[in-house]
Amino acid sequence: MPKIAMLSTGEEVLYGDIVDTNAAWLSRVFYEHGFSMYKRSTVGDQRASLLQELVMLSLNLDVVIVNGGLGPTSDDLSAEIAAEAADVPLVLNQGWLDTLKSFYAKRGKVMPESNIKQAMLPQGASVVDNPIGTACGFKMMINDCLFYFTPGVPSEFKKMATEQILPDLANHFQTTQGRVCRRIYTFGLSESGIADTLKHLSLPADYELGYRSYLPFIEVKLFGPADDLDTGTRVLAMIEKLLHSNVVSVDEPMLDRLGHLVELNNRTIAISEHATKGYLASWLQDNEKLAQYCGATWILGAKTASPLDRDSEQLGATLALAGATKGNCNADIAISTGKLENDQFSLAISTPKGEWGQTLKLQRTYSNQNVKTVISTVAADMLRRYLENKPMFPDYGFLTRTQDVFLPLDQITT
Amino acid sequence: MPKIAMLSTGEEVLYGDIVDTNAAWLSRVFYEHGFSMYKRSTVGDQRASLLQELVMLSLNLDVVIVNGGLGPTSDDLSAEIAAEAADVPLVLNQGWLDTLKSFYAKRGKVMPESNIKQAMLPQGASVVDNPIGTACGFKMMINDCLFYFTPGVPSEFKKMATEQILPDLANHFQTTQGRVCRRIYTFGLSESGIADTLKHLSLPADYELGYRSYLPFIEVKLFGPADDLDTGTRVLAMIEKLLHSNVVSVDEPMLDRLGHLVELNNRTIAISEHATKGYLASWLQDNEKLAQYCGATWILGAKTASPLDRDSEQLGATLALAGATKGNCNADIAISTGKLENDQFSLAISTPKGEWGQTLKLQRTYSNQNVKTVISTVAADMLRRYLENKPMFPDYGFLTRTQDVFLPLDQITT
Repeated sequence: MPKIAMLSTGEEVLYGDIVDTNAAWLSRVFYEHGFSMYKRSTVGDQRASLLQELVMLSLNLDVVIVNGGLGPTSDDLSAEIAAEAADVPLVLNQGWLDTLKSFYAKRGKVMPESNIKQAMLPQGASVVDNPIGTACGFKMMINDCLFYFTPGVPSEFKKMATEQILPDLANHFQTTQGRVCRRIYTFGLSESGIADTLKHLSLPADYELGYRSYLPFIEVKLFGPADDLDTGTRVLAMIEKLLHSNVVSVDEPMLDRLGHLVELNNRTIAISEHATKGYLASWLQDNEKLAQYCGATWILGAKTASPLDRDSEQLGATLALAGATKGNCNADIAISTGKLENDQFSLAISTPKGEWGQTLKLQRTYSNQNVKTVISTVAADMLRRYLENKPMFPDYGFLTRTQDVFLPLDQITT
Repeated sequence: MPKIAMLSTGEEVLYGDIVDTNAAWLSRVFYEHGFSMYKRSTVGDQRASLLQELVMLSLNLDVVIVNGGLGPTSDDLSAEIAAEAADVPLVLNQGWLDTLKSFYAKRGKVMPESNIKQAMLPQGASVVDNPIGTACGFKMMINDCLFYFTPGVPSEFKKMATEQILPDLANHFQTTQGRVCRRIYTFGLSESGIADTLKHLSLPADYELGYRSYLPFIEVKLFGPADDLDTGTRVLAMIEKLLHSNVVSVDEPMLDRLGHLVELNNRTIAISEHATKGYLASWLQDNEKLAQYCGATWILGAKTASPLDRDSEQLGATLALAGATKGNCNADIAISTGKLENDQFSLAISTPKGEWGQTLKLQRTYSNQNVKTVISTVAADMLRRYLENKPMFPDYGFLTRTQDVFLPLDQITT
């Protein structure tokens, strides 16, 4: 197995102004393909530190993926310093210069002079194509270590890594058995709670569990050999059973699962939002399928009169809002988020089978953005549970339920 | 100036399962105190990689802050490997053991056996106190490099860094003058475009420019000495003048600027969205001030009948929608985003002074999320320009304007 490192460059990464999502992504994807990462490092835009790091890595690693520093500006130094580290000159790559010129020509523009820099590569380096940007990648040897230089723009970097670097590495090196990672998405549990629940599970040899925790979901990851999917599926089913009522989807994010369900049930959806301020509609419609079934959304701002103002009993008001939204928008299903007051909020769903409503209390203090995320996820979970015929009111670890109600069709007064 | 590095340890950081906020935080705080970070690196929990990295850093840096690996479990290896790197044994630190015992005693508990490990330090190391946790920090020399070992828990780490490590470093090393970073937020320019515009600017000694590019904004960062704010302000004004029509705010994000403007003008705002799907309302309301002035938002989904369907001429339809939204919601100002079709979209703003509308075309392919971000930013920029009495139709580098219109009050037919 080759010793692989990633080197991220740029002051904005070194100083944490942007989170280095490329590095985290690459570690995961490489791992899934049987290449594990030995170390990561980050340097700024200073010549001396970049040069020293390239040399140090070249002497201690087999493969290094360098990310960033391929732009047209004067603080983009990767190609120049790579040439210095390998003791070769920079030379013009006519092929890439032509690509750049046609890139601009297609957009009806002339290439700025400063972009010529992006076609200057260390002598002996070969181009790694970037079909969607102006910074070409390149690969070269420095002191017997194989370097891939890649652009910082995430979409360009990811395309290059999956379509070109990974296949190239697989040609250079014998990989270990490919590994796959399968995922169970949970909502409403803590990581230590999940770990406690799963600690007596005896996994087959060669299987490992991992967790990835990001609001609002915790992913349980099952790593195992790529050539034995049956065993993996069996273990996955066991885990799902143990975490049952908090599992929102398996091997696909919750939103994709909801998209399938809505399409399958062929139901149009209308939304009215107060606490979530438009985030719920915006998030759901990130899924193409859900977008096709979404009718109107009504967002009640601070200056909007609504049933939520008229009634101090928020659960009832939120149910009334859902019912009215379903009727006014002529939708099959309506979801409503009520006001957030004293960390407490009500949610309601109005459906052809009746209406469900609940009031929940946040147990922690969240940022504005995270409040919207948590409440929107509970709302989406109500939709999922309705469409899957699941119980509507599960325990959510970080929310306290203070009220819940179900009104069958014949009890709804309009 | 000492060459300073930070080494983060742990599989969960290496694989990006948790974001290394400690590293970003430390870089910023050190910088503000006149110590700049030379590099950062990350290794997992393997003995070999940790040892190799400690040795490599000790030979090339003056100061290294190691973070993580001080816990009581078997995969916490920092103290043990530090001893190995310095070729000294681990010895019991009786002082810290007493601290640990009383830490547990105060909580009415007996210290678990496994915690003894946390009082075993490399011979010659001195304790760096941790008043709020069980993992003590320690400092020691390895190959003439000064190492500080710190716990991974962010609150403990930050307390230790500010209260002990920074003052200690200031004793060891002459610091340079503290530095500040000021920011100009631009929208609609490319990084190379900005660099071309600013390349003839001659900066005073000790000032540096940096860029931070993240959709949809590019921040121009001006780094300079903390004790000469006048010069900084003068340079900032020069840069702002050069980038004039694309500067959306200075020293505060655009959303904060908009919040101030809306409050100052005391205007209520209603929104209707198609292309942006709720993202515009959700984003604007992340700002507390804007949230107070937002009236209702109407989101037109795939299944909603609206003026946008009835009229194939989208600019006119979007203007009509803005006018209707303003009237129906009884707001001072209404903003509308029209349909996105063939990468083209219309936007309109209806105000007490008249209505403005424009149609723009995306020049690149974006993800669903990024499309919403870009269009919402243009919409917010129209609001800003209206409130600041600025020209409404500037050049946006990555958008092509195909139509624009202004209807003064007396030309609006309702």
